[in-house]
Amino acid sequence: MSVKISPSILGANFCNLEQDIKVLEQHAVPVLHLDVMDGHFVPNITFGPDQIKMLRSVTEKMEFDAHLMVTDADSLLARLADAGVDSVTVHVEACPHLYRTLTTIKNLGMKAGVALNPATPIDTIKHVGHMLDRVLIMTVEPGFGGQKFIPGMLDKIAELNQYKQEKSLGFSIQVDGGINLGNIAEVVRHGASDIVIGSSMFNGSLEKNIQDFYAALK
Amino acid sequence: MSVKISPSILGANFCNLEQDIKVLEQHAVPVLHLDVMDGHFVPNITFGPDQIKMLRSVTEKMEFDAHLMVTDADSLLARLADAGVDSVTVHVEACPHLYRTLTTIKNLGMKAGVALNPATPIDTIKHVGHMLDRVLIMTVEPGFGGQKFIPGMLDKIAELNQYKQEKSLGFSIQVDGGINLGNIAEVVRHGASDIVIGSSMFNGSLEKNIQDFYAALK
Amino acid sequence: MSVKISPSILGANFCNLEQDIKVLEQHAVPVLHLDVMDGHFVPNITFGPDQIKMLRSVTEKMEFDAHLMVTDADSLLARLADAGVDSVTVHVEACPHLYRTLTTIKNLGMKAGVALNPATPIDTIKHVGHMLDRVLIMTVEPGFGGQKFIPGMLDKIAELNQYKQEKSLGFSIQVDGGINLGNIAEVVRHGASDIVIGSSMFNGSLEKNIQDFYAALK
Amino acid sequence: MSVKISPSILGANFCNLEQDIKVLEQHAVPVLHLDVMDGHFVPNITFGPDQIKMLRSVTEKMEFDAHLMVTDADSLLARLADAGVDSVTVHVEACPHLYRTLTTIKNLGMKAGVALNPATPIDTIKHVGHMLDRVLIMTVEPGFGGQKFIPGMLDKIAELNQYKQEKSLGFSIQVDGGINLGNIAEVVRHGASDIVIGSSMFNGSLEKNIQDFYAALK
Amino acid sequence: MSVKISPSILGANFCNLEQDIKVLEQHAVPVLHLDVMDGHFVPNITFGPDQIKMLRSVTEKMEFDAHLMVTDADSLLARLADAGVDSVTVHVEACPHLYRTLTTIKNLGMKAGVALNPATPIDTIKHVGHMLDRVLIMTVEPGFGGQKFIPGMLDKIAELNQYKQEKSLGFSIQVDGGINLGNIAEVVRHGASDIVIGSSMFNGSLEKNIQDFYAALK
Amino acid sequence: MSVKISPSILGANFCNLEQDIKVLEQHAVPVLHLDVMDGHFVPNITFGPDQIKMLRSVTEKMEFDAHLMVTDADSLLARLADAGVDSVTVHVEACPHLYRTLTTIKNLGMKAGVALNPATPIDTIKHVGHMLDRVLIMTVEPGFGGQKFIPGMLDKIAELNQYKQEKSLGFSIQVDGGINLGNIAEVVRHGASDIVIGSSMFNGSLEKNIQDFYAALK
Repeated sequence: MSVKISPSILGANFCNLEQDIKVLEQHAVPVLHLDVMDGHFVPNITFGPDQIKMLRSVTEKMEFDAHLMVTDADSLLARLADAGVDSVTVHVEACPHLYRTLTTIKNLGMKAGVALNPATPIDTIKHVGHMLDRVLIMTVEPGFGGQKFIPGMLDKIAELNQYKQEKSLGFSIQVDGGINLGNIAEVVRHGASDIVIGSSMFNGSLEKNIQDFYAALK
Repeated sequence: MSVKISPSILGANFCNLEQDIKVLEQHAVPVLHLDVMDGHFVPNITFGPDQIKMLRSVTEKMEFDAHLMVTDADSLLARLADAGVDSVTVHVEACPHLYRTLTTIKNLGMKAGVALNPATPIDTIKHVGHMLDRVLIMTVEPGFGGQKFIPGMLDKIAELNQYKQEKSLGFSIQVDGGINLGNIAEVVRHGASDIVIGSSMFNGSLEKNIQDFYAALK
Repeated sequence: MSVKISPSILGANFCNLEQDIKVLEQHAVPVLHLDVMDGHFVPNITFGPDQIKMLRSVTEKMEFDAHLMVTDADSLLARLADAGVDSVTVHVEACPHLYRTLTTIKNLGMKAGVALNPATPIDTIKHVGHMLDRVLIMTVEPGFGGQKFIPGMLDKIAELNQYKQEKSLGFSIQVDGGINLGNIAEVVRHGASDIVIGSSMFNGSLEKNIQDFYAALK
Repeated sequence: MSVKISPSILGANFCNLEQDIKVLEQHAVPVLHLDVMDGHFVPNITFGPDQIKMLRSVTEKMEFDAHLMVTDADSLLARLADAGVDSVTVHVEACPHLYRTLTTIKNLGMKAGVALNPATPIDTIKHVGHMLDRVLIMTVEPGFGGQKFIPGMLDKIAELNQYKQEKSLGFSIQVDGGINLGNIAEVVRHGASDIVIGSSMFNGSLEKNIQDFYAALK
Repeated sequence: MSVKISPSILGANFCNLEQDIKVLEQHAVPVLHLDVMDGHFVPNITFGPDQIKMLRSVTEKMEFDAHLMVTDADSLLARLADAGVDSVTVHVEACPHLYRTLTTIKNLGMKAGVALNPATPIDTIKHVGHMLDRVLIMTVEPGFGGQKFIPGMLDKIAELNQYKQEKSLGFSIQVDGGINLGNIAEVVRHGASDIVIGSSMFNGSLEKNIQDFYAALK
Repeated sequence: MSVKISPSILGANFCNLEQDIKVLEQHAVPVLHLDVMDGHFVPNITFGPDQIKMLRSVTEKMEFDAHLMVTDADSLLARLADAGVDSVTVHVEACPHLYRTLTTIKNLGMKAGVALNPATPIDTIKHVGHMLDRVLIMTVEPGFGGQKFIPGMLDKIAELNQYKQEKSLGFSIQVDGGINLGNIAEVVRHGASDIVIGSSMFNGSLEKNIQDFYAALK
């Protein structure tokens, strides 16, 4: 099956990141989701290109997927590429020049995604859909941990999936926020194929959680 | 002797922070310097209150000294206190309401400091000097690693020290930027007593570096 | 009949607000519309939570409906709740994190509305419609008194009303700007049920105006 | 045929603008396109009202069509009118109060247009379409010279043209970015009737280029 | 004696402002202090030119002294003059083009003042001192009611007074924040001659408070 | 004599800049002053790096001295160097990281200057004086043509000159604003040696004006 699990580093043990990353790698988790926050687009600050570069030294295999919750994405793109990031997702609400931002990401050799806040309609991406490797439907408001999945987002995922099919677009549908063992199957059923998982992945035994999430997807 | 060494977490191994912190603690290094950057006051983003809270779980003994290189310090203060920070230093260039910001820090039970960019004159702190636990003379521009110590800052340290003596003020003089075994003694001779050390502390053997820096101070 | 008249305090006599509020209360006008402006989202500054709190002491009965024409609605919400506000309407153009802002309003125990500038399409609210107590169609540009009703907004009201019926949504449709005795009936006919009235309510005799507006609605 | 060519002054010889303007005027080119950039909405700075006023002294006949790539269009409108500008186009991405901005332009006696960045959907103008003299479909990202025409914009032009016909709207469809002798006919075929031409007009012989472009339109 | 008392309208009964103003006028209080806040320079929003214009209709005699706690003072100046304001004080921390702002105030026929936050040194006004009608030493942080007078400001008042004498400058020294019957005499003794009084003037009997403050000044 | 005249391109005929530059070059005027404005630091927009690059093609000999009246000087520096600018002056009021900005200018191979608005004290440059090639005392507010020289700036020039002598600093003192044949000698007498001249240089005969200004300096 082609559904992909993307653990968010924010849920990991910040004091021993290498250890958690190694476990993920050993269990063939293919992607590490990197939540970059600047304290302006969202209230929290998390980490930036320099920290990502150090994480890159721990694993060569995992795809590094950076989700930028910042007001000035353009200023970070070259440094993210240099840090070894493979994919960058930007928020449509923070990118008045979205076409240029996506073009810059692609020209730097990275995959490009667009994230939509819960209230943001999907037609905001209609003129860039063909350029995208991924569209991220936020299923909580970005910038805070521990929020509950917003049920109304299931319809939005389905709406995006239908639009994608109708237009034969190639992007994958990513979801982020409040995903757990109880709702992951339903999210996938509505069309998501790239599932970001935060605290539900890292609370308790990481090995067991990985196995449980894979089981839930079968 | 009363000179204090404050290793900056930015120089540590981001993938194994606990390990480096444990070494510092075992060698009785009393303070951990925490460089919070937001990508707006300075171009880099580093980490925020949530990350600091996780570091706090590793050590109870070390003083957590947060240096805020952000445009909106006020929005972080309560969360820093909650994360276990003991001391907060803000930049005078980013605080139009400096008295209020310092008062908030103190009311939250933390020590308060003011940082001055290399070009900022010391008389900008003249009406708050009596409230301060520390004044931080930046000896490089904030926000970038690997810069060289600005020699002209020695005079500024001396000028601040003289002002402090004349007015019988109680703050300590902290310096941050480009400090190494070759210049630490001179910096102390000019009046600094709280020395932030970044890459020079963590490159190579941390244990040996700690001993070398202590030796250099004797 | 379920149409509601909401006099805007901005049209009242600023030097004797209590007197005008008492008249409204005596005539069973159920709502006071409170236009909060910050000089940034719109060029004018009007009043804030502290002033509203004082008005609250004059009347316990009237619903206080605050319309925020500000760039940072989030920073005011808790203080508005504390001031005794019952309902808060925010502008979609100023709320990149609209879902979170609305959730905060509801969690503070207030009703939540979204306002749309004249040029803003109604599909901007499509993912939050079910959370809303009211949608405000601006029938002039916000921030200035004495403008004329924009005729094209009648179609927008009708479009919103049709959308609301189709989706069985529960919000009321509020209009604000240039409403007078000559156009109120037509506005209602197009689907509005909550009518903000400014200078047309307070110019001349307030008692007579209230009666005339009620008569015009029959 | 009613297709109009609008040479952009940005492509002209900045050291001898009068000379190029005179050539355009002698060849009956009816419009001069004036790209005002502020270094904030876009990274470049170009010129402002004072410079336009000096250009106005060179030609009385040509229509001056200003395209504002700035974050605060409102602050320039009166000065542009005073400088002799005939038509002002503003970006929907930078105008939260679009109706007011357009009304101000019209009240100053100028024609009004709205520009859409490549990623911006056309339904953003749906409530102001009847007020517009022109809609500008950006066929490159604004703010940089020498970019290539974005092929996907042909569909957007056609979509806008169809919408315009359906609603019987009176605006002309302008395109700007990467237009040359090879693609101008196709752009017109999709519905554009006002074609901004930059470097392709001024590189080489201006006279010959004017004739070639007119020929390409036949 | 030439000491002047300036009651701040913020302390008055917002629901019956005319009544309080009439009492002040009857007791020959010569000035009304108007605290304009925008929710950006300070967290609170208070009122703007339109509200002041309505207050102006209540009294012709009292000097209207507006203290702007806003980030964009320039945008309000013409409207304040039109509203009948006699004097405008701006914050040096918010005016990068202070000379121009002060010149605009004077050209509009108003008196001009500069306000200094508690931490701001007085040498920031050294090149405009000769243009000023007043310098306002904030004795609390602007933007909040009910704060306590900052004792360290007494020295700052004295320092400003000495500077004024040495340079033979004509401005009056105004203080604002935390003034009450217990400290007004000492503030005057240090050199202040224009005393803004907020809640201490309006809590309890306004008549009695006016008399008590006049008595305290004898 | 070592006094230098710097004509500002803003005063030249914008429609025929080459012609005016050629006259300046033929009369051995060594410097062209380039006023870059962004409509944010000051209300006007003038021109940017692309326009300067075209001017550079007209003259190889003249020094290009760019005076940045912009809020984000850092974003322009590399493009200015690439455009052939020899010297860049930035405003201290817009550069919170002044040391870094000046270092960047120098590392790009250009001379570095700092400009002070009329109200800005000279001690703001005290920690960077040794790095500077020029200090610009604004003798009008930046951003507007046609203002009158501010007489109080003569003392500021003298104060800066004295400071420069005392500290044996190497920068030249530039003045800008309202300079004409009637006051240039006095400005020089107070210590300025680099005199920016705008409209007074270009109104009437440029040749004659050049000669008159040189004569006035003898």
